[in-house]
Amino acid sequence: MKYTYDHPRPAVTADLVIFTVRDRELRVLLVRRGGEPFKGSWALPGGFVHENESLEEAARRELAEETGVRDVYLEQLYTFGDPKRDPRTRVVTVAYFALIRSDEQTLRASADAADVAWHAVARPPKLAFDHAKILEHALARLRAKLGYSTVGFQLLPKKFTLTELQRLYETILGTALDKRNFRKKILALNVLEDAREVRSDGPHRPARLYSFKLKKLMYLDGQIV
Amino acid sequence: MKYTYDHPRPAVTADLVIFTVRDRELRVLLVRRGGEPFKGSWALPGGFVHENESLEEAARRELAEETGVRDVYLEQLYTFGDPKRDPRTRVVTVAYFALIRSDEQTLRASADAADVAWHAVARPPKLAFDHAKILEHALARLRAKLGYSTVGFQLLPKKFTLTELQRLYETILGTALDKRNFRKKILALNVLEDAREVRSDGPHRPARLYSFKLKKLMYLDGQIV
Repeated sequence: MKYTYDHPRPAVTADLVIFTVRDRELRVLLVRRGGEPFKGSWALPGGFVHENESLEEAARRELAEETGVRDVYLEQLYTFGDPKRDPRTRVVTVAYFALIRSDEQTLRASADAADVAWHAVARPPKLAFDHAKILEHALARLRAKLGYSTVGFQLLPKKFTLTELQRLYETILGTALDKRNFRKKILALNVLEDAREVRSDGPHRPARLYSFKLKKLMYLDGQIV
Repeated sequence: MKYTYDHPRPAVTADLVIFTVRDRELRVLLVRRGGEPFKGSWALPGGFVHENESLEEAARRELAEETGVRDVYLEQLYTFGDPKRDPRTRVVTVAYFALIRSDEQTLRASADAADVAWHAVARPPKLAFDHAKILEHALARLRAKLGYSTVGFQLLPKKFTLTELQRLYETILGTALDKRNFRKKILALNVLEDAREVRSDGPHRPARLYSFKLKKLMYLDGQIV
């Protein structure tokens, strides 16, 4: 292999922003750092990309090693490469994110992590490096995606009421939504299918059940988003 | 500065996918490589990130050096890091994209580029490295963004007819659209403002003029996309 590039090379890491909804709150998976720098601080899981693995393989490996979380659908979020973002050396980090069901995962801290836990996004601890900025970026992406994709799909049962869907959206958005506007906009998105069933809960009028269309939202009969 | 990381480091580059609409075709800005590997092949503009510049600064510098194109609004697209994507050494590339007005730019090849030109996206030349894959990814993103943002904004005059807008969308999507469906969906997006003017073109009924709302599409009264 010829090396034709003489500039100093940055280190490359993969970091992960893993969200879940738990106890009616949006939460993010954090690890407590076992080593310097920022020893003892909470941080996003992640670490250095090895020589022969892809960026996503590195992200999956670090997630499993540090937190025990496996088999999640990762989406690449953004690459952060400010020259001063790590006090040790220049580190370019490729961030991934996911929204998962936490009840299917067992947390187990190991490798560089001294502890691991789900933290409420509304009250995060002080984070190492620029991880607060990465978390903010992921949160904005997740919230935006609610508007044009079926990102909430995996957190709901197969069939659900519009009230359950609205509660999930409110939890992720961190804000109350007007019921009539929500229903109008969510139905206009054309990602829901009438399950042709109703569910009776107590004294209320039975609620109609919906499911997500299994294809993603399409644009103008053409490109899949 | 302490170095605490002993793995071999990948090189990091920034590459650019710059689109325009010209002669009723969607086109992409390509350079002809002046050096090995892939000498003489067409490629996306781009190059190595220097030690003290951010990723986006590197992208802007390479774009200006290799093509003469300046002052464009860049959006980060995706980071490609397959271990074998460059025959020389491991290279992780952060790709950026933009949709610009080509009539405001003068192309001028220099630095590592032997030539520079706008190529029709529908008939691209064979590209160096994995640049065909990066181009495909950018095209999918651009087309998807038409569905939920005002990405076409900068290519139209301040006031335009729905027919002009439909033609732009058809050019970018590379497909004909049904007029009635297009109008219904584009108006439902709620990004257009009635300019309260009409324009008479020949024997047809005068066409109503629209402008883009200057805020971007918002989701559920909350998060800005």
